[in-house]
Amino acid sequence: MHLLLDGRGPLHAQLTRALKTAMVAGRVSQGSRLPPTRLLARELGVSRNTVLTAYEQLRAEGFVDGRIGSGSYATLPLLTVAANDPQPLTSQPQSNFSRRGRIVHDHARIPGRRVDGVRYAFQYGMPLVNPALATAWARELAHAAAYTSPNYPYTQGLPALREAVCDYLARRRGVQATPDDVLIVNGTQQAMALTARVLLNEGDRVAVEEPQYFAMRELLQIHGAHLTGVPVDAEGLCCDALPSRSPQLIYVTPSHQFPSGSVLSLSRRMELLQYARHNQSWIFEDDYDGEFRYDSQPLAALRSLDHDGRVIYVGTFSKTLFPALRLGYLVMPAALRQDFITAKWTQDFGSAPIEQAALASLMANGGFERHLRRASKILRERRAALLDGLRALSAGRLEIADSRAGMHLVAWLRDKNAADGEAMIAHGQRLGLGLHSIRPHYLDPPDRAGLLMGYGGMSVTEIQEALVLFSRCLDAAYA
Amino acid sequence: MHLLLDGRGPLHAQLTRALKTAMVAGRVSQGSRLPPTRLLARELGVSRNTVLTAYEQLRAEGFVDGRIGSGSYATLPLLTVAANDPQPLTSQPQSNFSRRGRIVHDHARIPGRRVDGVRYAFQYGMPLVNPALATAWARELAHAAAYTSPNYPYTQGLPALREAVCDYLARRRGVQATPDDVLIVNGTQQAMALTARVLLNEGDRVAVEEPQYFAMRELLQIHGAHLTGVPVDAEGLCCDALPSRSPQLIYVTPSHQFPSGSVLSLSRRMELLQYARHNQSWIFEDDYDGEFRYDSQPLAALRSLDHDGRVIYVGTFSKTLFPALRLGYLVMPAALRQDFITAKWTQDFGSAPIEQAALASLMANGGFERHLRRASKILRERRAALLDGLRALSAGRLEIADSRAGMHLVAWLRDKNAADGEAMIAHGQRLGLGLHSIRPHYLDPPDRAGLLMGYGGMSVTEIQEALVLFSRCLDAAYA
Repeated sequence: MHLLLDGRGPLHAQLTRALKTAMVAGRVSQGSRLPPTRLLARELGVSRNTVLTAYEQLRAEGFVDGRIGSGSYATLPLLTVAANDPQPLTSQPQSNFSRRGRIVHDHARIPGRRVDGVRYAFQYGMPLVNPALATAWARELAHAAAYTSPNYPYTQGLPALREAVCDYLARRRGVQATPDDVLIVNGTQQAMALTARVLLNEGDRVAVEEPQYFAMRELLQIHGAHLTGVPVDAEGLCCDALPSRSPQLIYVTPSHQFPSGSVLSLSRRMELLQYARHNQSWIFEDDYDGEFRYDSQPLAALRSLDHDGRVIYVGTFSKTLFPALRLGYLVMPAALRQDFITAKWTQDFGSAPIEQAALASLMANGGFERHLRRASKILRERRAALLDGLRALSAGRLEIADSRAGMHLVAWLRDKNAADGEAMIAHGQRLGLGLHSIRPHYLDPPDRAGLLMGYGGMSVTEIQEALVLFSRCLDAAYA
Repeated sequence: MHLLLDGRGPLHAQLTRALKTAMVAGRVSQGSRLPPTRLLARELGVSRNTVLTAYEQLRAEGFVDGRIGSGSYATLPLLTVAANDPQPLTSQPQSNFSRRGRIVHDHARIPGRRVDGVRYAFQYGMPLVNPALATAWARELAHAAAYTSPNYPYTQGLPALREAVCDYLARRRGVQATPDDVLIVNGTQQAMALTARVLLNEGDRVAVEEPQYFAMRELLQIHGAHLTGVPVDAEGLCCDALPSRSPQLIYVTPSHQFPSGSVLSLSRRMELLQYARHNQSWIFEDDYDGEFRYDSQPLAALRSLDHDGRVIYVGTFSKTLFPALRLGYLVMPAALRQDFITAKWTQDFGSAPIEQAALASLMANGGFERHLRRASKILRERRAALLDGLRALSAGRLEIADSRAGMHLVAWLRDKNAADGEAMIAHGQRLGLGLHSIRPHYLDPPDRAGLLMGYGGMSVTEIQEALVLFSRCLDAAYA
């Protein structure tokens, strides 16, 4: 009998494992007699005691029948479940969620993901790298690891972090909330996943801005929502185009429409709130980058104007700190508070406490604000470098969408259709320049060429160098 | 006009905010004239320029109408959405998920949660506190924070961690898997939440052990599954009691049935796999504490005996390290791999990379195994202290369920019903002793008194001191 010992742990345990493997694989058939202990010991060059111990263990586990001494017989029950007879599994999706997931989401083609082999990439969502922040964060984490309870988390989030979030929201975003209103989540994506659970049955209607962030759209579609796109213009969501059949939920980015860049005007804010009130709709206010603004004071958040408790306000630290943090927050309407906490509990019990404690400390000791000031200054320079550069090389070919906030802008190519845009992106890739179409962010993409250009992760020098390549792409497109 | 300046940032910004607040709150009614700039400047003791700047900002944002100089008028649009007229919101649940959540889950009464005012608690799930581990973890986190990409995570999990998990599973749990099979998740709860998404429509049938871990049961119920309890005995799940109508999913804890403590025998393992194959059911194998065993080698995991790709094997670091870590893993059947990755992506994009990197490092450099060895030794002592103590004071009153693994055991009170058990728990609490009923872990609780006694978080001395109180409770119960 050929037995392969794996060399780990005591010899008798190795032998036990090897015999089991042989039996499960069908190399020892059911009912057949195992080699006598003396014989096997000699064959393997181990002591007879080792073999006896292994046989005893096998007997204890039901792999072997018979008394030691009178022969041991393999009794692996129901051995017909054999290794060599794998039934081909259906690859049908096993739930409606999975079925929609296969239709909607293609993990190999996520919009905006960095393509191999490019030297520069105007990639949306890349964090601004701040070495001082990395150092501060390492220190906060180490400290929090030593002082945070190792036990299960508070489902709603660490009280200290919820307090710090409320303080931040009141000072910088004009949102009044108490720690009881706040739910700590693993980023905006989880905030929407929970909202879908709390608010939406399969087939429920959701109004989304058109264009919209593709990941939110896919999440809602896979959840089973029925989406309606509402156009946006320079004042943000066109409220008069909101659907006449009441949507259960309206997903908006009022501080800085993603990806078009417009800011929802105050009158539209009021109109939207009135619509929501009239239609008993809920509003998901995604304030993903409203912190970074370049020309004026931010407008009041929808949440701060909402007196009906219809707005779910959501913020994230992915843009203000870095995406690997996976922490964000949700300001819950009172009527949904318990439902949100239950939903969070069912999904993962609560977010990781050590990171929450580290973040609460960073916010309390000023490290967060220091980073924000620094990041604001740097992003302003990067935005100026990109805007100035694009304007200088445009020669009337580019239509640069207004963008007074955040870390991206949209550049439309005048008189070019979608296919022209794809050709330009392909050309960029050959030159080592990563460009990204805006089209994946539409429910119903227009036949125009538009680029979503992120600048948060590139230095001014990199932007300027990338623009040299961009200029060549543009010339080729209009040649 | 009474305006409260908040003292943050430039004066004109403070004034702008204060005026907006007054308007939104209805203290300045629509169409009314704002005070002339000179007057307001004098009133507030600020320069006229400050007031002019504030009025201009308000005009730019649409809060004020009229030209500077000819009077400024509050124009807050649609002010009928007034602060003083909040519509009472329906508190009806907004989705089937929320409706079931309200019925099933009571966040204020989570079984096993520590009660205030107790001095000792036989609480399940408390981590073993190891100062050496806390130190090592702080160091790993600080290092990982400095060297991990700040960008969005890999949805499937950091490759280095998936490799470390495969290595661990092969060596210590007998499970063969490649990094492609592994999905990193935020603990077992998320593993089941994703499984529910991937496999279950509302109304689908799920077989669970009876008793079972309450949190999994509630998650499945709130998801909308139709549950059937299958009894367990000293050999684990009674396979001959599996339902005749095929369940889509079977949830089991073969290494150490939770909470009863039995280990699923090998013949039952084979029977269960054959049932799953015959019924095209999926199996969720929750190996939550199989690492800690006290008498024999562990049996082969279901996953290692499964040749049909029907087993979803799930492990967690909550028991081997500590629950605040919020990391676990799922070994996916090939047929479901893409669906699982998509589901994880929709829920939170991926688990936090810094913690994953820290954990991969701890597993690679031996720190994890060092902790396991130490924890095993300590848990063995604690288990012995509890078992010896209970046997010594039982006098035939306790029936201690077999428990050869983990960090808890079950003690039944002979001839006592559920009400007697509640009385004993209440008595314990008056003495400062936390005791926990096993009944919340049943779909259909028996009318017997049983205690789920966790010992992982108590030192031997604490266990002995707690047993003195326990003895008094027991005497009272049988007085």
